[in-house]
Amino acid sequence: MSESIKYVLGEESIPKYWYNLVADLPLAPPPALHPGTLQPLGPDDLAPLFPMALIQQEVSTEREIEIPGPVREVYRQWRPTPLYRARRLEKALDTPARIYYKYEGVSPAGSHKPNTAVAQAFYNREAGIRRLVTETGAGQWGSSLAFAGALFGLEVEVYMVRVSYDQKPYRRALMETYGARCVASPSNETQSGRAILAQRPDHPGSLGIAISEAVEMAAQRADTNYSLGSVLNHVLLHQTVIGQEAMAQMEMADDYPDVIVGCTGGGSNFAGLAFPFLGAQLRGGKKARFVAIEPEACPSLTRGKYAYDFGDTAHLTPLTKMHTLGSTFTPPGFHAGGLRYHGMAPLISHIRELELIEARAYHQVACFEAGVQFARAEGIIPAPEANHAVKGAIDEALRCKREGVSQSILFNLCGHGHFDMQAYSQFHSGKLTDQSYEESELAMALAGLPSVPA
Amino acid sequence: MSESIKYVLGEESIPKYWYNLVADLPLAPPPALHPGTLQPLGPDDLAPLFPMALIQQEVSTEREIEIPGPVREVYRQWRPTPLYRARRLEKALDTPARIYYKYEGVSPAGSHKPNTAVAQAFYNREAGIRRLVTETGAGQWGSSLAFAGALFGLEVEVYMVRVSYDQKPYRRALMETYGARCVASPSNETQSGRAILAQRPDHPGSLGIAISEAVEMAAQRADTNYSLGSVLNHVLLHQTVIGQEAMAQMEMADDYPDVIVGCTGGGSNFAGLAFPFLGAQLRGGKKARFVAIEPEACPSLTRGKYAYDFGDTAHLTPLTKMHTLGSTFTPPGFHAGGLRYHGMAPLISHIRELELIEARAYHQVACFEAGVQFARAEGIIPAPEANHAVKGAIDEALRCKREGVSQSILFNLCGHGHFDMQAYSQFHSGKLTDQSYEESELAMALAGLPSVPA
Repeated sequence: MSESIKYVLGEESIPKYWYNLVADLPLAPPPALHPGTLQPLGPDDLAPLFPMALIQQEVSTEREIEIPGPVREVYRQWRPTPLYRARRLEKALDTPARIYYKYEGVSPAGSHKPNTAVAQAFYNREAGIRRLVTETGAGQWGSSLAFAGALFGLEVEVYMVRVSYDQKPYRRALMETYGARCVASPSNETQSGRAILAQRPDHPGSLGIAISEAVEMAAQRADTNYSLGSVLNHVLLHQTVIGQEAMAQMEMADDYPDVIVGCTGGGSNFAGLAFPFLGAQLRGGKKARFVAIEPEACPSLTRGKYAYDFGDTAHLTPLTKMHTLGSTFTPPGFHAGGLRYHGMAPLISHIRELELIEARAYHQVACFEAGVQFARAEGIIPAPEANHAVKGAIDEALRCKREGVSQSILFNLCGHGHFDMQAYSQFHSGKLTDQSYEESELAMALAGLPSVPA
Repeated sequence: MSESIKYVLGEESIPKYWYNLVADLPLAPPPALHPGTLQPLGPDDLAPLFPMALIQQEVSTEREIEIPGPVREVYRQWRPTPLYRARRLEKALDTPARIYYKYEGVSPAGSHKPNTAVAQAFYNREAGIRRLVTETGAGQWGSSLAFAGALFGLEVEVYMVRVSYDQKPYRRALMETYGARCVASPSNETQSGRAILAQRPDHPGSLGIAISEAVEMAAQRADTNYSLGSVLNHVLLHQTVIGQEAMAQMEMADDYPDVIVGCTGGGSNFAGLAFPFLGAQLRGGKKARFVAIEPEACPSLTRGKYAYDFGDTAHLTPLTKMHTLGSTFTPPGFHAGGLRYHGMAPLISHIRELELIEARAYHQVACFEAGVQFARAEGIIPAPEANHAVKGAIDEALRCKREGVSQSILFNLCGHGHFDMQAYSQFHSGKLTDQSYEESELAMALAGLPSVPA
């Protein structure tokens, strides 16, 4: 027990730039397309929704993008985040593997999401915007933007997927504590929402629908912008502070990961941890395996089609090439609400096609079992989303045990589960079940993919 | 914004000993008495409930008590905790005061309680104990002991005050995630519980009753001990890591607190922050004001009598001299469940009598208003208990503004409110109200104080 288990960096080690993986890729990712013309999107097409600074980041090919001073100033409240060696978990698993986790749950909103929320709020305020509208699944993103909005004096309005809104009332209370307004989606406040409710009044919602509602609202007012918590290049970019810190911390531990694991919904926390390591590898550095873990009930990377698709259900967004289950696909209401998205980040999808990363899907009960085992060993209660990464890391550690190899496994514990205890309650009382989508619904959603000439 | 707002110490700065205030007091505190003989308690009287190491700490007059290696090893997961300068709150209040807060919510269970839970679990395991029984109010203590039990391989059973059990179902889920068993108190499992339920089947419970149940269970089995989360000398002792770290951090900030604020239920978080500063003052160091904040609905320090009383309702515990509302007093079911105790730590009561500290009481709505203002400025959602300290600190800062003085205010943000969002929901929807006890009930409880010859 005398070796260090916690690797802590000083404030001076908060990254000074975000790392842009695109600069190091052997092949540029396909461009986003305008939904009307099907031509590559220009910066002006995005201007009604985003400030120009973020649009430039979205298409940048620069390797390093400087983090503005006021953003780093806010980061200092919780960054650098700790990296832990999970010695007690290793012991419980009786594995020769060395397990490390980067813990992003120390942020005020309890996840990695403030890394980009703060940046987005900053750039929007700089651009004179007064109000941000967004969607949220489990509420981690909505509460993060609410937090960032409170700091920068921006109004925040959040469309929250109804099934999560009902499952997680306390995430809503958190957003309201930060001063944001939270609306269950589909709602009667937008055309897209009303159209969905007309078809199915008890619709459980989906991230795709909530995005439609938020985009619709944002497009209506000049002082209002839209803000997205994952998927887009600039969001993944902002998350790379995670991996940059983790690289320095693995160096402190005098180790290097053989396997890097993260859960993927839109892909931002996985990207945040993995991209700096992957970039180093692409520039000739050490090699690692990168494993993305997704829910079996919403398996875009493992079961989706790599195709151009809309980011939202009402087809208000540009088309991006990504692994998608179809923009009309409504995943079952499992607890990892942050992973209930029909598509995968275009950049993650692209590197999956380049075979730079692996992907695997798990059902939720097995993930909660892993999460409880982790909590009893390490003391931290993971968010349901993070339980997917925990399960992935445990499975890798058990593989090491079977194979008798001592590898180093690093995973992103992207958030705590303090606002998700209803799911744990259900798990403890034996009421948590695995959920599956209808194969026919998936087939229909895939059949409805837009037709884009090659 | 260029000055540091977070003061972080390295692992090597985790205190190596606990600080015992008794060593520096001008007058020794009155002894605890045996409930039968009314004679000063001997170590053997406590042996059925506590391991000898803790009993020795309970009566020690040594200034420094070494922290065992395995306890420090666990502390390293989250200690040293950060100390923040609340610049954004200062700005919101437009105060010339400098406000600092020590943040104990970074522990796995989310409060200061693991500081003593880990120590107690360690000493009990060393003594061959296999099972710990305890009570909990809001659940912060119960979940902390559940966490510590999981680390040291001890079974944990928690009697949780019914009103909190009903208000905070997710704290129970947390305890169960750590592997503990949680029972609503008063319960049918003990004689004390059954006696209360016979009188009033819908009794909301109180910490005094839950203590009776836990003590009764612990006394029945040789492999089982009792564990208390506040009040006792050894518990306050373990919390002094907070103040020792804060002293080093205030030095980093090149400042010294004029006022030190903490909330008080049993008194342990206030003691943890205040005692090291108070000890330094008693040894001739700088002076500060020490302000204990308690709930108006359970005001032991401001409205209680300084007298010998039982720690529990069924009168199974020793008698200690303390500020008490009477052991049969049942406080209304306000949200700061951790402050719903009829008595105050004997050591805090003693220094209140010595006029070394001040005390003040607030109603809960004002405390939640302060908590929401704090959250919007600083990003952290305080526990309802901690909101009392936040309110106390804000009032001191506003006093500085009125008086035009630039003082330094340090308070203990003893835990986050992630498991208390129902209370915030109620607050946001305007349903949270202040609660008052019946004056007649207080009079009756005080009239029932045991008669102890001087």
